[in-house]
Amino acid sequence: MTPKQLRHATASEAALMRVFTVPEEPESTLGQIESKLSRDLAGFLQESIAALEKPLSEVEKDFQRHTIPEQPRFVSDYVDEMMQNLVAHSVHTAAPSFIGHMTSALPYFVLPLSKMMVGLNQNLVKIETSKAFTPLERQVLGMMHHLVYGRDEGFYKNWLHSANHALGAFCSGGTVANITALWIARNKLLGPKGSFKGIAREGLHRSLKHYGWDDLAILVSQRGHYSLGKAADLLGIGRSNIYTVPTDANNKVDMAAMRAKAAELNARNIRVMAIVGVAGTTETGNIDPLAELAQLAAELECHFHVDAAWGGATLLSNKYRHLMTGVELADSITIDAHKQMYVPMGAGMVLFKDPASAGSIEHHAEYILRKGSKDLGSQTLEGSRPGMAMLVHACLQIIGQQGYEILINNSLEKARFFADAIDAHPDFELTSHPELCLLTYRYVPAQVQEAMAQARAEGNAELLEQFNSLLDSLTRFIQKSQREQGKSFVSRTRIPAQLYPDRKTTVFRVVLANPLTTEAILEEVLAEQGEIAARSRQNLTKLLALATRTSVA
Amino acid sequence: MTPKQLRHATASEAALMRVFTVPEEPESTLGQIESKLSRDLAGFLQESIAALEKPLSEVEKDFQRHTIPEQPRFVSDYVDEMMQNLVAHSVHTAAPSFIGHMTSALPYFVLPLSKMMVGLNQNLVKIETSKAFTPLERQVLGMMHHLVYGRDEGFYKNWLHSANHALGAFCSGGTVANITALWIARNKLLGPKGSFKGIAREGLHRSLKHYGWDDLAILVSQRGHYSLGKAADLLGIGRSNIYTVPTDANNKVDMAAMRAKAAELNARNIRVMAIVGVAGTTETGNIDPLAELAQLAAELECHFHVDAAWGGATLLSNKYRHLMTGVELADSITIDAHKQMYVPMGAGMVLFKDPASAGSIEHHAEYILRKGSKDLGSQTLEGSRPGMAMLVHACLQIIGQQGYEILINNSLEKARFFADAIDAHPDFELTSHPELCLLTYRYVPAQVQEAMAQARAEGNAELLEQFNSLLDSLTRFIQKSQREQGKSFVSRTRIPAQLYPDRKTTVFRVVLANPLTTEAILEEVLAEQGEIAARSRQNLTKLLALATRTSVA
Repeated sequence: MTPKQLRHATASEAALMRVFTVPEEPESTLGQIESKLSRDLAGFLQESIAALEKPLSEVEKDFQRHTIPEQPRFVSDYVDEMMQNLVAHSVHTAAPSFIGHMTSALPYFVLPLSKMMVGLNQNLVKIETSKAFTPLERQVLGMMHHLVYGRDEGFYKNWLHSANHALGAFCSGGTVANITALWIARNKLLGPKGSFKGIAREGLHRSLKHYGWDDLAILVSQRGHYSLGKAADLLGIGRSNIYTVPTDANNKVDMAAMRAKAAELNARNIRVMAIVGVAGTTETGNIDPLAELAQLAAELECHFHVDAAWGGATLLSNKYRHLMTGVELADSITIDAHKQMYVPMGAGMVLFKDPASAGSIEHHAEYILRKGSKDLGSQTLEGSRPGMAMLVHACLQIIGQQGYEILINNSLEKARFFADAIDAHPDFELTSHPELCLLTYRYVPAQVQEAMAQARAEGNAELLEQFNSLLDSLTRFIQKSQREQGKSFVSRTRIPAQLYPDRKTTVFRVVLANPLTTEAILEEVLAEQGEIAARSRQNLTKLLALATRTSVA
Repeated sequence: MTPKQLRHATASEAALMRVFTVPEEPESTLGQIESKLSRDLAGFLQESIAALEKPLSEVEKDFQRHTIPEQPRFVSDYVDEMMQNLVAHSVHTAAPSFIGHMTSALPYFVLPLSKMMVGLNQNLVKIETSKAFTPLERQVLGMMHHLVYGRDEGFYKNWLHSANHALGAFCSGGTVANITALWIARNKLLGPKGSFKGIAREGLHRSLKHYGWDDLAILVSQRGHYSLGKAADLLGIGRSNIYTVPTDANNKVDMAAMRAKAAELNARNIRVMAIVGVAGTTETGNIDPLAELAQLAAELECHFHVDAAWGGATLLSNKYRHLMTGVELADSITIDAHKQMYVPMGAGMVLFKDPASAGSIEHHAEYILRKGSKDLGSQTLEGSRPGMAMLVHACLQIIGQQGYEILINNSLEKARFFADAIDAHPDFELTSHPELCLLTYRYVPAQVQEAMAQARAEGNAELLEQFNSLLDSLTRFIQKSQREQGKSFVSRTRIPAQLYPDRKTTVFRVVLANPLTTEAILEEVLAEQGEIAARSRQNLTKLLALATRTSVA
């Protein structure tokens, strides 16, 4: 709106311009809306245990309109409507009884800080739209790099703020972090050589031909995250070139099997491009033998990436960081701050052992990302992106290593308490022991457990399958009903359980990262599941009948 | 923290737990910090014109430490420090005189709403961690789809909330949107056929072999965004397979040249996988002839993608949407809401004409993204991601189409005003006319303009190059000095200018999207540049001496 135009501005135009100026007084309409919003949000976060139950198809009716409204609306009307339609039907991911996924409670100070971050609206792709946010992000990456690799002061002095180097890349989440790591691995392996300009310019097909390999391969355990398949697709390698290696009973990759697979691929002229270690698995939180994987990667002269999106934060605990031994040998590592580091959604990181790694994916433009500039965007998959690193910075400073030590130790120890409670309960079966703070289990009435033990002793596979199939459907029923009751939430998945390694068994999956989850809440979760099971006539009757029949027989 | 543990909790543990509970009273410490923060932020946004000037190397010293602090800190201490070290040295992207990049002012209501979004901490990858946010995001995509494609009510009734379809994908920004579109294009072209399982499984090299093509190609104008090269690298196609076609004097792709290139590639057994139309170009805001590109894509039976990261919002203006004619023929289109739609950073979208398109990049897992689920993550590049769609929803509802009409028309008309002012000024040269609200220009003293006109008339290319080379360095000097003075900011780039199509000329680049930028501010920008030029003894003396010498000669 120019001064000349302002003189002729209609009332609606002038009103519109006002929404771009910051309200000066807390008594202004927007100031009042903001207080109301803060109050309502606090109310929601404190009182509500989970989203109000309303079938999704009903919720969808409030978001059915497909045309953009013509007329502007009052902010207050919009906010009132959204409190009813959106907030009341959002999942209360911070609830202490929401223990089904990796989204947890947030320290309250991140809320005003995020508002500040959004208000500053920096764009980290280039220094011209971020200034101090660029060194801040580099510092966060440096601190995380030091947490993993622990290099000396001189190392960080050289590389932390170096224009042509990167200790890591900040991104929206673990998926982009994993893709970035494998992209670098691929481009380094098939890089420029003599007159050949490398894969970034020439493409995968011509690079394979140049290097004389029939195919590339990525080795990972069967418990690797689904984003690795997505990466193989995206990078043109193909999902069939992800070789998933079996695990032992503790969901850790079988090293002998991986070694055998690598030898077989080599004999077939298929080049192993990367080994991915999992720390910990999405479903059970187990950690691969990282040092052994590093050794094999060194023998194969391939990239070693560790997907520690979940487990990486364990390095903040002096008591438990030994679980991650070998991670310091990784060429790259994924860590999500929005998981166990208690930062809001959208804070992924990939760290590079070698500060020159990201050179293989470097790109430039004329208006930004010029060579030698400190623009972070020249070595990232994403382009424009927000200053989320600030929230990681804040948590690292305000919580500190000692604060994280308490938080992480509590989570791991709470998982051990819950595992013991499940083990001790006659009607539940623990299907994976917690190594970090994830575990899986299912409801199996004592009588059925006995009948199944007998069937196992007799090697009656057919009968066991009958039981497991009925139990699968009971587990699904309990998990869905519990979610619908809205008091608490566990997730479910299908994994090869310890007792039944040859089939995918449906189990409850629990993530215990919320510091506000108490032992009492965990006991209530089991009690509620027992009650739901008792109501599940159809499933339970069949199961018990089968148990009775077979134990009589 | 379990009840049992709480009884034994140390004071520091108890304090730590408290940061996870929402403060009830505005008088609480956190409440006070929040008010202070809001006040300080408002002060910064209102008073500061640009970041305090301090060399980057000095700013870096405040972010030098590479170790994570051991001890926790008080929130208030941290916030005070960050106001000094971070906020004071952030770029004031909302300043009315910050007209160099695509980051602009935000309507104030997005700040409290973002705090709400962050507090709810939903994860849009799956319905179990987002509930009502999932239908909300689908609605936003539906509204944007309708804005572009304008299908009838039945269409949206069928597909808006359909589990196995997607009208688009929300993502962090235009780069991920462009990558997603080209990923889909690649996977559809090289999809499963008979016993062949398609590129997602088999990889690029085997797919090319199966289909019998030597290479893939992407056609785009020389003004295409740098993210397209990044996409070609990432997707394994290779940057050398992006064929950049020359443009006319208005930065629009030369259709005859593109057609000729397509014929040549066809003769070489190189399959054109996609044509990308630019709307508008990052540097000058020009829009390709979209309908003609669509026609060529139809003839070549290839994907037609439109990168309208910047220009897409023009569709919200009934007065100017005709500039985008032909966009409705695109198979996919990128639109960034954090550009001309006044949403904070991190709100990119790609829309698909065919709701089944994204099926070619679909993926599943056992614990989420199960087949038939409404989890948005099964058809996106990113995994976990925040509920940014809510802020687009809010802007669409609160500003409305009529509000956007005013905002966008103002921006476009302000650009025309500025172009006229530059044209009328004896010492400036307009290097690209605004089609949207971007333009480029440079400082060329009247006397030099005359001498150059004479040189052009005489066909003295060598002399022109001498002038242009001196002008390039003067333009760089002015742009850097202006940025350092901190009063206003324009960016700079190197483009083939209308008068000198065969060289890359350094020019100022201006983006006029901030509704608070006045005509007076634009006149001050020119005045300041004139003053800086006058101070630039070295450059100016050489230029004027050359002009004098040659006009005397």
